Amino acid sequence: MASSIELAQFLLIRAVELDERGRWTESLTFYQDGVTELLKHVRGLSNKGDQQKIRDKIETYINRAEVLKGKLDEKKKMGNYHEQIEIANNEKGVTYEKLFGRFLDENVEQIDVTDPYIHNKHQCYNFLQFCELAIKNCKNVKRINLLTTYADRPQHSNKTARVKQEENLKQLQESLRKMKITLNINYSNTLHDREIVLSNDWVIKIGRGLDIFCHVPEFSIGFTDLSLRPCKETVVNIFHRASLIK
Amino acid sequence: MASSIELAQFLLIRAVELDERGRWTESLTFYQDGVTELLKHVRGLSNKGDQQKIRDKIETYINRAEVLKGKLDEKKKMGNYHEQIEIANNEKGVTYEKLFGRFLDENVEQIDVTDPYIHNKHQCYNFLQFCELAIKNCKNVKRINLLTTYADRPQHSNKTARVKQEENLKQLQESLRKMKITLNINYSNTLHDREIVLSNDWVIKIGRGLDIFCHVPEFSIGFTDLSLRPCKETVVNIFHRASLIK
Repeated sequence: MASSIELAQFLLIRAVELDERGRWTESLTFYQDGVTELLKHVRGLSNKGDQQKIRDKIETYINRAEVLKGKLDEKKKMGNYHEQIEIANNEKGVTYEKLFGRFLDENVEQIDVTDPYIHNKHQCYNFLQFCELAIKNCKNVKRINLLTTYADRPQHSNKTARVKQEENLKQLQESLRKMKITLNINYSNTLHDREIVLSNDWVIKIGRGLDIFCHVPEFSIGFTDLSLRPCKETVVNIFHRASLIK
Repeated sequence: MASSIELAQFLLIRAVELDERGRWTESLTFYQDGVTELLKHVRGLSNKGDQQKIRDKIETYINRAEVLKGKLDEKKKMGNYHEQIEIANNEKGVTYEKLFGRFLDENVEQIDVTDPYIHNKHQCYNFLQFCELAIKNCKNVKRINLLTTYADRPQHSNKTARVKQEENLKQLQESLRKMKITLNINYSNTLHDREIVLSNDWVIKIGRGLDIFCHVPEFSIGFTDLSLRPCKETVVNIFHRASLIK
């Protein structure tokens, strides 16, 4: 059972580090995953004394997570919670789920995605993966609004790219329609900002938009599982705007 | 926090049901996931009495999981553990991870996959997703041996399909080589059996091989996340052969 305890240590060290740096929502998920690994470890122990030691640790981490959750709720009420995540060049292990999956919950009915680069095949796949995550995490989502630019912006007139982009997104729209979710697609030619706004008042701003993963060939490790691909350097800002919209 | 407790109830009811039916390795993961959800729920409770009630439940489930693990170890030692999983037609929520991810661990150095149908693009994607899972779960895997048939079997002579099959699998081979994992690809024309043999002595037999998911178009929900796709009806048999190979 060495690997459970090693993984638990890794996760909990990271939880404490994120906690100290004020990245509480991330820290909470690391505490939770760490405790899960400790639970696996405790199952493998036969000595009652050893078991009790680990259970005391579990208790400590759960208590800390509860304190953190209380602080977070307070900050959210005051509308001034803000966290920043830096993704390093070539960093691996990143997924949309890990980055911001914890903000996609059953309170989300509408998602507004503004991202100028949902153009090429791999960018349409990114948006597909985002929608798949949204469907899994947001049981009550009814509407996804995408605002992007046409693949054939004035300076690069390329009808084929635009036709493919529209075909891909319409296919996704049809697939979502069958699940009773409306995907509205709108195009603008003057778009620079990138943001994802959830109707539970969380706002996710990724410097590069959804296009944060390095390219890999089609039948290579990491093609379908994004956590195995290296990332491009970028910064993610997440904040809650509860007090702003009242 | 209604959803955590609802999810916990769902998971734990399933854990107990699987436990009673003797599907212990699956039951263990449901107990674990259920306890994780109870931990999330307990964090959201402010009343100390309510917290204690849930913690008592957590304790009960952990104890049961420990008993189960002991029984499982004993059965494995005797070499007669065998479980059967039936996947219904159109069932959703199935992934390779959920089906048999719990058997892929750090003790696996070699994986032998015998599957006559790693031919078409979607079947090569299936095998890619299997390899991605293996890499994530088996930290010490060094070798994956694939035995399949050529896409142009004598009765369907189609050179193009065969060329594409070889190209796809070679691309995967090259990608694995960069991670210091050898993928050996061998072809047979007299292959009927389907099985995955792990060097930690678990054997996984899926009636249909890896090709258990229904087709969805390329930019549709479920194309990259297999848990969102319906399945074809099939039976999975998993057994341990510790005593056989001694």
